[in-house]
Amino acid sequence: MTITITAFERSPDGGKGLARDTRVRWALEEVGQPYEVRLVPHRAMKEPAHLAIHPFGQIPTYEEDGLALFETGAIVFHLAQRFAGLLPLDAHARARAITWMFAALNTMEPPILDIFTARILEGDKPWAAERLPLVLDRVRARLRQLADRLGDADWLDGGFSAGDLMMVSVLLRARPSGVLDEFPTLAAYVARGEARPAYRRAFAAQLAVNAPAA
Amino acid sequence: MTITITAFERSPDGGKGLARDTRVRWALEEVGQPYEVRLVPHRAMKEPAHLAIHPFGQIPTYEEDGLALFETGAIVFHLAQRFAGLLPLDAHARARAITWMFAALNTMEPPILDIFTARILEGDKPWAAERLPLVLDRVRARLRQLADRLGDADWLDGGFSAGDLMMVSVLLRARPSGVLDEFPTLAAYVARGEARPAYRRAFAAQLAVNAPAA
Repeated sequence: MTITITAFERSPDGGKGLARDTRVRWALEEVGQPYEVRLVPHRAMKEPAHLAIHPFGQIPTYEEDGLALFETGAIVFHLAQRFAGLLPLDAHARARAITWMFAALNTMEPPILDIFTARILEGDKPWAAERLPLVLDRVRARLRQLADRLGDADWLDGGFSAGDLMMVSVLLRARPSGVLDEFPTLAAYVARGEARPAYRRAFAAQLAVNAPAA
Repeated sequence: MTITITAFERSPDGGKGLARDTRVRWALEEVGQPYEVRLVPHRAMKEPAHLAIHPFGQIPTYEEDGLALFETGAIVFHLAQRFAGLLPLDAHARARAITWMFAALNTMEPPILDIFTARILEGDKPWAAERLPLVLDRVRARLRQLADRLGDADWLDGGFSAGDLMMVSVLLRARPSGVLDEFPTLAAYVARGEARPAYRRAFAAQLAVNAPAA
């Protein structure tokens, strides 16, 4: 079986690892599966060939024999179901780990992505400077709740899981704004994720595409 | 086994079915499981007893013997894994249905919820009137892509699944703004969801709580 994912031909972040293919690369490294990467030029993202696999014209996608998926949550979950290493075997612990995947993507990521909306998409609007602090405060409110739950644990629920993989990946997107570092236990949690050998391999692989001269 | 979910003691929408407990009620009705509801007063949402179950202080939560979950995606997925009726048995079709759950929650819902941010949370800001059209245009862009993928099919991938349950639930939140009706095939898709007996029972159950005099 060959696994093929897609990634930006050139990531807008220049190799910081914030594009969503890094999450899928990380999951593949955690479960020890080799994969191939098809790079998609920006102009091809909204063309029929790519839209046939990803209806919203984004990356990453995931293909194996006879199956095509999109959405990082779905791809990481598929890998976690199929290969050992990302979800506990106990049914209750497994359900809780999956809960954290959804929490990362539906509760934590939207306010964090709103930082991007405020700074970039609406960065030239007259309200940009005044609105950004409101957006950051909404992110802080979520980070505070997450920090309260994490406490001094290493991971969100027992051992490292796909829930942590997704939460760390989402929190990484808050770091450039500075708000993540206001919560030292969360910054340390993210650092634990980044220190995992599987993450380091994934990061290096995306960097090799996006900053080949570095 | 007793299943207990939480819901607002009084939903901010006054019984329009847009609060997230409706999604879980719908899933429970689709799989034919009885459930109890514990109503949470607004003041109790951020208190320790509720935060112990839902770290972000929201509803719904889900409890069964020895297991407590939050996040509608995780709860609906748990029900779909455990009981028949919401996910196909074929492994590939199942992975695709799960993909649509994530797409509803991570790709479609964030821009739709931004309508709420623009109109309510930031409704008193000087930029409110000028910003709303930008937000609605971002929703339209996603709705157009979704309509292109749905085509003239009844459901997103074969028969009705948890992916449709979640997508219909998310799209319902775009309807009050008027943008949903700009896409007749999507409006019809949502209406098909609402016509399901399980949805009607779920809607009636939340209405009984939120508009008891109606």
